[in-house]
Amino acid sequence: MSELKMIAMGGLGNVTQNMYLYEYEDEILLVDCGIGFPDRYMPGVDVLIPDIGYLLNRVEQGKKIVGMILTHGHDDHIAALPYVLPDLPVFPLFGSPLTASFAQNRMKDGGIEREVEVVSSSEVFKISEYFSAEAVTMTHSVPDTRHYAIHTPEGIIYHGSDFKIDLSPVDGVKADMAHIEQIASQGVLCMMIDSLRVERLDWSKSESIVGPVLLKEMTDVGGMIIVTLMSSHIHRIQQTIDAAVKLGRKVAFVGRSVEANVQAALPLHKLHIPNDTVIDKREISNFKPHQLCIIIAGSQGQEGSSLMRAIYGDHPVIQIRPQDKVLFSADVIPGNELNFYGAIDELCRNGINVVYPDISPDLHQSGHASAAEQRDLLKRVNPKYVMPIGGSDRHRVKFVDFVAEPLGYSAEQVLIPENGAILSFENGLPSVKDVIPLRPRAVDGLGIGDVGPVVLSDRRVLGQSGMIVLVIPRVHGHLDTRNITVVSRGFVFMKEADEVIGFIKEQTATVISELGDKPREEEVKRAIEKRLSRRLYKIIRREPMIVPVILEM
Amino acid sequence: MSELKMIAMGGLGNVTQNMYLYEYEDEILLVDCGIGFPDRYMPGVDVLIPDIGYLLNRVEQGKKIVGMILTHGHDDHIAALPYVLPDLPVFPLFGSPLTASFAQNRMKDGGIEREVEVVSSSEVFKISEYFSAEAVTMTHSVPDTRHYAIHTPEGIIYHGSDFKIDLSPVDGVKADMAHIEQIASQGVLCMMIDSLRVERLDWSKSESIVGPVLLKEMTDVGGMIIVTLMSSHIHRIQQTIDAAVKLGRKVAFVGRSVEANVQAALPLHKLHIPNDTVIDKREISNFKPHQLCIIIAGSQGQEGSSLMRAIYGDHPVIQIRPQDKVLFSADVIPGNELNFYGAIDELCRNGINVVYPDISPDLHQSGHASAAEQRDLLKRVNPKYVMPIGGSDRHRVKFVDFVAEPLGYSAEQVLIPENGAILSFENGLPSVKDVIPLRPRAVDGLGIGDVGPVVLSDRRVLGQSGMIVLVIPRVHGHLDTRNITVVSRGFVFMKEADEVIGFIKEQTATVISELGDKPREEEVKRAIEKRLSRRLYKIIRREPMIVPVILEM
Repeated sequence: MSELKMIAMGGLGNVTQNMYLYEYEDEILLVDCGIGFPDRYMPGVDVLIPDIGYLLNRVEQGKKIVGMILTHGHDDHIAALPYVLPDLPVFPLFGSPLTASFAQNRMKDGGIEREVEVVSSSEVFKISEYFSAEAVTMTHSVPDTRHYAIHTPEGIIYHGSDFKIDLSPVDGVKADMAHIEQIASQGVLCMMIDSLRVERLDWSKSESIVGPVLLKEMTDVGGMIIVTLMSSHIHRIQQTIDAAVKLGRKVAFVGRSVEANVQAALPLHKLHIPNDTVIDKREISNFKPHQLCIIIAGSQGQEGSSLMRAIYGDHPVIQIRPQDKVLFSADVIPGNELNFYGAIDELCRNGINVVYPDISPDLHQSGHASAAEQRDLLKRVNPKYVMPIGGSDRHRVKFVDFVAEPLGYSAEQVLIPENGAILSFENGLPSVKDVIPLRPRAVDGLGIGDVGPVVLSDRRVLGQSGMIVLVIPRVHGHLDTRNITVVSRGFVFMKEADEVIGFIKEQTATVISELGDKPREEEVKRAIEKRLSRRLYKIIRREPMIVPVILEM
Repeated sequence: MSELKMIAMGGLGNVTQNMYLYEYEDEILLVDCGIGFPDRYMPGVDVLIPDIGYLLNRVEQGKKIVGMILTHGHDDHIAALPYVLPDLPVFPLFGSPLTASFAQNRMKDGGIEREVEVVSSSEVFKISEYFSAEAVTMTHSVPDTRHYAIHTPEGIIYHGSDFKIDLSPVDGVKADMAHIEQIASQGVLCMMIDSLRVERLDWSKSESIVGPVLLKEMTDVGGMIIVTLMSSHIHRIQQTIDAAVKLGRKVAFVGRSVEANVQAALPLHKLHIPNDTVIDKREISNFKPHQLCIIIAGSQGQEGSSLMRAIYGDHPVIQIRPQDKVLFSADVIPGNELNFYGAIDELCRNGINVVYPDISPDLHQSGHASAAEQRDLLKRVNPKYVMPIGGSDRHRVKFVDFVAEPLGYSAEQVLIPENGAILSFENGLPSVKDVIPLRPRAVDGLGIGDVGPVVLSDRRVLGQSGMIVLVIPRVHGHLDTRNITVVSRGFVFMKEADEVIGFIKEQTATVISELGDKPREEEVKRAIEKRLSRRLYKIIRREPMIVPVILEM
């Protein structure tokens, strides 16, 4: 008997790094392919990508990838494409117009040329023998966001990726509730649903309320206006442009990501800009500051971003002066407080007027549904089973209390499988038959996956306490303890550390003398590491990495 | 002519690490002596302490420290005492009863026995020829908080450290507004005022509203109730005990800091606990879970805290089971999201009911005044000049817009000196005559100040990208490039890195051969570092620390 399998390959309980696999008979359908962001336990890592180990195994066993659906154009749903696709056979990619354009840009950045088939929301499209799908127009913080009803032999899966229910969206394109009800009327087996903002109980505010706040904050400014925002937030960019036009200001886009996204949105008519509004950033110096509105990348205060270079006086075309005003039309991403508020503090120190959501709350609105909206959508789709996704484990668990239970769902109907679980539907019944070990796959520079647990744990030790390298010469099989060389970095300031170095040499010599004649190399190293770690901790409460090197002469 | 000087020795624009210096003629009066917390640019550092370089110079020049006033018992105001006092001559310390007790505990932890003179709020106490002071009863998140009116020959300075204006405090002890008005009637030259929460416009809620929320969340719980909170928050502990008593539960305190603070508060009657309420933590196993309420340290999810050990099943007396309920009666400290939410996610994964401020907002209230309360206090004190303290630079700057300007203060009357500035008052007029370079002083293990900029910058590089040590033997003055030893940690996984290691050896040999005969050691090292950094960045986009070691044979 056949079953429908479902696996979250970026892990469940992860907000980012989205990639889902649906498997039926010999067919595999993928949804999204996003990056994740390393925390401080993964130092030096640039991004994380989904672990496709299971997928590679299945392909080797003869399974066929029939396609990949992309739900929307955010990096945590599309930006792993250039890392993941080269390892896989070729298959079609599907997405809405703007999602396709953003995804193609991301792939191009990574040196990959692949088309994304643009799918319409008005009809079911057949993907393979067992899978077909239909795109549902949905509201979120990037235009052209879609949910997908995936038709499988086991029934319909409603893949409800990131969304909010914006009742007055900036572009007038509302969530297509009629379409959802038509899908629901066929009976939905299981619904996946974005649970990230389940802790917020009230219906979230519409994105369109940000426009008047932007206009108000941009009025009566003597100098230049600089607005920073998430570069994919086309609706926010539109509202900023609208306010600038009302105030008679020219608009310039600064920052690679903002410029690229605007270029992608314009031909698709996702942005509407009156003639003679936009100027090239190289023309900025031809205008007076009060004639300008700059839309700039770097809303998280990222090091090296256009905004940070402008703040530190390091940008070729933007100088920020005391008459200017800077608007942060973005919230801080949790964990990123140091950069975000660091940028604001620096502007304040320089006497620049800066406004940010803490003091002007409606300068930003989230793109994610609150518990109230999640309930609304769940009620409409009315699936037999529901599985919260897109949040941390606490969000998945609180989804039960705040969304599912109030609508009468029993504990058995809410699926919260553990990380790596293979969830199967067979005869309409869900079960977890196996759990695969999902490992975080780290991208560091040009290396993918070569930074594993050992390297990361070494980096943590090195970064916390530094290292001490001991080079011990071995002459005719005898360790020469009178000629030990000690090199240290990040431990104590070496020029003031003669005493410590002397102590380390002395301890090393003692350990070696205690080991007797011709000990094995591994034995010597272990003994030195153990003794020095313990003694150094005792005298200075630090645990540097100790690296003994035995050098054969 | 004499002048009154004022310096913030922990830096201005710092929320923590509070220490202020007032200087007149040959006398110096200090206020507070707190620790700060390192950010991720200071890896491995335990705490930061104020830079007393200026103070040490002045003492050497014959100035006399006449005393130190402690405003309240929070670590960012008292916990640097054991690090700072040993370097200074002996002088009297002043504080309220609970502040004195907390400070003495902190000093004892650091091996220092010093008395703190308990000062009453009802009279001016003379400190020295030029300084006297009076303590003003104030509300904050630790009992016995005081503001101080410092009488100097230049006029009265109102030192308005951390506060909120709680109109119905848990212990009934309100801010003494009559006293403040009596001080104001004498004319106040300058007011220092806590500006941390200036971004919040509305009057903050009273601490006493947390009690009913605690009671509600603690009602109808089948198992043990575990409440975690800031361990110095005696009022929160009182409200938790009150709720436990109402529900007929016994209370146990778990965690060194909670236990010590309760022991300090009890004899001072800052905590009121009915007989037969408290049990020793070792008796916990004698009771049924539903008879117990545990008050436990670790509300930030700190590694190694009692709460985290209990969560990971690693605590000798507390096991958390699925019928139990955990309440986080504390907010996450910005930058600490990973630990805080990590603890909550882990509890959710383990099927434990956990409640925290994101889903039960009144489970915590801040101890800091909003802009509305700052305005209220400023209006009452009515100083000629006002200087916001206790916040980041953005808080000091926004204080002008939200607090000072609405009350008619001109820009000249609001003092926002730069970090390290020596602010002078002479004939009632403020000016900055000099700026001293304040350096962060880091405590790492038992070392104070030996971890400086070079060590920290090395740690950052090591932690991000690891290191490569190259040992090159030199025989009779010639570098032996056929016997280079390469050791690496935190760079790539060595067992899979033969190719990279080969490349490194080859490049090193080439660099050396290009340098000609008998180059200087420094020249060789620099050339190797430069070439390898550049080549490795090119091929793998990583920048490990490269440490060449030349070993004389």
